[in-house]
Amino acid sequence: MTPKVARYLAEQQPATPCLVLDIDRVESNFRALRAALPLASIYYAVKANPARPVLERLVRLGSSFDAAGIEEVEACLEAGATPACVSYGNTIKKASAIRRAHAAGVTMFAFDSAEELEKLARHAPGSRVYCRILVENAGADWPLSRKFGTDVETARELMLRAGEMGLDPYGLSFHVGSQQTSTAAYEAAIGKVAMLFTDLRDAGVNLRMINLGGGFPTRYRDEVPGIDRFATAIMQAMTGHFGNALPEIVIEPGRFVVGDAGVVSAEVVLVCRRVKDDPIRWVYLDIGRFGGLAETEGEAIKYRITTPHDGGETGPVAIAGPTCDGADIMYERSNYRLPMALASGDRVELLSTGAYVTTYASQRFNGFAPLAEHYI
Amino acid sequence: MTPKVARYLAEQQPATPCLVLDIDRVESNFRALRAALPLASIYYAVKANPARPVLERLVRLGSSFDAAGIEEVEACLEAGATPACVSYGNTIKKASAIRRAHAAGVTMFAFDSAEELEKLARHAPGSRVYCRILVENAGADWPLSRKFGTDVETARELMLRAGEMGLDPYGLSFHVGSQQTSTAAYEAAIGKVAMLFTDLRDAGVNLRMINLGGGFPTRYRDEVPGIDRFATAIMQAMTGHFGNALPEIVIEPGRFVVGDAGVVSAEVVLVCRRVKDDPIRWVYLDIGRFGGLAETEGEAIKYRITTPHDGGETGPVAIAGPTCDGADIMYERSNYRLPMALASGDRVELLSTGAYVTTYASQRFNGFAPLAEHYI
Repeated sequence: MTPKVARYLAEQQPATPCLVLDIDRVESNFRALRAALPLASIYYAVKANPARPVLERLVRLGSSFDAAGIEEVEACLEAGATPACVSYGNTIKKASAIRRAHAAGVTMFAFDSAEELEKLARHAPGSRVYCRILVENAGADWPLSRKFGTDVETARELMLRAGEMGLDPYGLSFHVGSQQTSTAAYEAAIGKVAMLFTDLRDAGVNLRMINLGGGFPTRYRDEVPGIDRFATAIMQAMTGHFGNALPEIVIEPGRFVVGDAGVVSAEVVLVCRRVKDDPIRWVYLDIGRFGGLAETEGEAIKYRITTPHDGGETGPVAIAGPTCDGADIMYERSNYRLPMALASGDRVELLSTGAYVTTYASQRFNGFAPLAEHYI
Repeated sequence: MTPKVARYLAEQQPATPCLVLDIDRVESNFRALRAALPLASIYYAVKANPARPVLERLVRLGSSFDAAGIEEVEACLEAGATPACVSYGNTIKKASAIRRAHAAGVTMFAFDSAEELEKLARHAPGSRVYCRILVENAGADWPLSRKFGTDVETARELMLRAGEMGLDPYGLSFHVGSQQTSTAAYEAAIGKVAMLFTDLRDAGVNLRMINLGGGFPTRYRDEVPGIDRFATAIMQAMTGHFGNALPEIVIEPGRFVVGDAGVVSAEVVLVCRRVKDDPIRWVYLDIGRFGGLAETEGEAIKYRITTPHDGGETGPVAIAGPTCDGADIMYERSNYRLPMALASGDRVELLSTGAYVTTYASQRFNGFAPLAEHYI
């Protein structure tokens, strides 16, 4: 938690549940990434947190943007981004959304299938297109592999066809999965994509860009490698494969930029044992899986939790949300321990919750309003 | 799909994704349940669909209401329900929410722990309270077991204590899990609760109510037993255990009342094969797990899907939502087949989506607005 967030929570005691996010931390994360990978173009993954203050700060810092939907494209433009800085990175787009983005001046689009390429040729003629390749997601806490991407052979064919269809075959992309803690995933993926790059050059198509996706981790409960480790591995792999003839390197960080800038403040609604003398206490918070903490599905993302009783004796707990839904359990098997003194009415903080929280929140499950958001 | 919904979709072609729900079907479902279980008090589970037109129609029919949160309590009152007809059925409540409900005139509250009982004694003195017992959820497609309920011994102790604390020890409840397709689950649970009823009577506490929860199934892809089967099993178990001295029987149907009244109309965004010659086509809709179809998690609830090409040749498909999230996959292992002619831009309908859809929808994941709602 940044000192600014800590001070805000202490002084303002905002109603729970809420997110408090330190925009200066967004800036320092962005700067750290730019310093670590000075040759990369940073396209902030808007879906991680599309709040206006975040976008405006990043516009001021010269960031580009990766938008998942037309509403995100428009949010970037409204925050001051130029259309040339916005990539429409979802490989699944309605024709109407492609038309709207193209009309707004967006000229870079992702795809990973023949059908989508045809839509782009029709509704965004002349645009720069890049094809997403399916790569291994081993090492990622939130893997993405099955739904997106295509194999190298299909990508080759599609990139050849793109030029014939009046599009600009611009580059290739991959995604190693979100909260990726292994540098090897990037190295293997770069190797795979580099071969196709060469192969396509021999076939007369000069790609100019490699999009490494996002995935850089934030520290949650466990330590993660620093960004320098990823930067070194990436640049070694890139120069190893491309030498001095480096293509444009695009990265799409979301979690890394906003994750540790935000803290969710929540209230303990109930602490109880399901049956007498059960060693496990159940701790119910006023936010849960359907209130924004969707990434605790399968206990994938393990947030650190601080309480007013930290330092005192602890015991094992299960941690759940406030709804009547039996699936609204965050942690039951991840060996969480919380202070024995924890009780209803206590305020707790879930750290590094700046990414992938506010937007997942259900609009009103069980009647609960989405969490409030404070950008400071 | 009811004829009224079919006509509305054909004539209005409302923008997708949207829910169209036939309020008359809500009424006929309610009437069917009342006819099948004339001795039961029906407390509609508001969380299944809290839309004002649904609540108003049910108020007019004389329904009572099971509210999961204070906002749902207030929605019922605003729709015309009297406070005496509202049960605050979530066993996890903030003190402030209990106070607000009590101040509004609500006098029936659920609990399942000593801590919650203390909160009720302090903030809703004199109220009727009922304790939730943990029972088996076998047979349920959406089980709820681990998070709620306590064992018989703890419940006995808590009900004895309730009277001492100035509360009215009113009854016992259980929940056999949602979309429960086995009547045996109700029979076993009633037997368990009936023993405690007798036991507490011997200890001088005269309970007057048994709350059987909800769980009655809606027909999705597979056939389910009719409501008469459940009614017969329930009444046989009740009379078997209680003879003529039946306590008040409360049921809390949600899915059964609204599920098959609603249809989600969606657009196909993309149909493609991930790699060439893959037998599986991926079908991407403009609604997915984070747009309201949360109950497809783990492929638990299997909606029927109709398309404009029904009757033509079909092939195996995976079905996913429109977001960049790799977890936004509805069906990959459930052997769905859809017509080979299906293509981007086609409208499809997901049947029996009147329950547990609109409220789960994320407020703006990937920028997508929640689905529109039409109550007709």
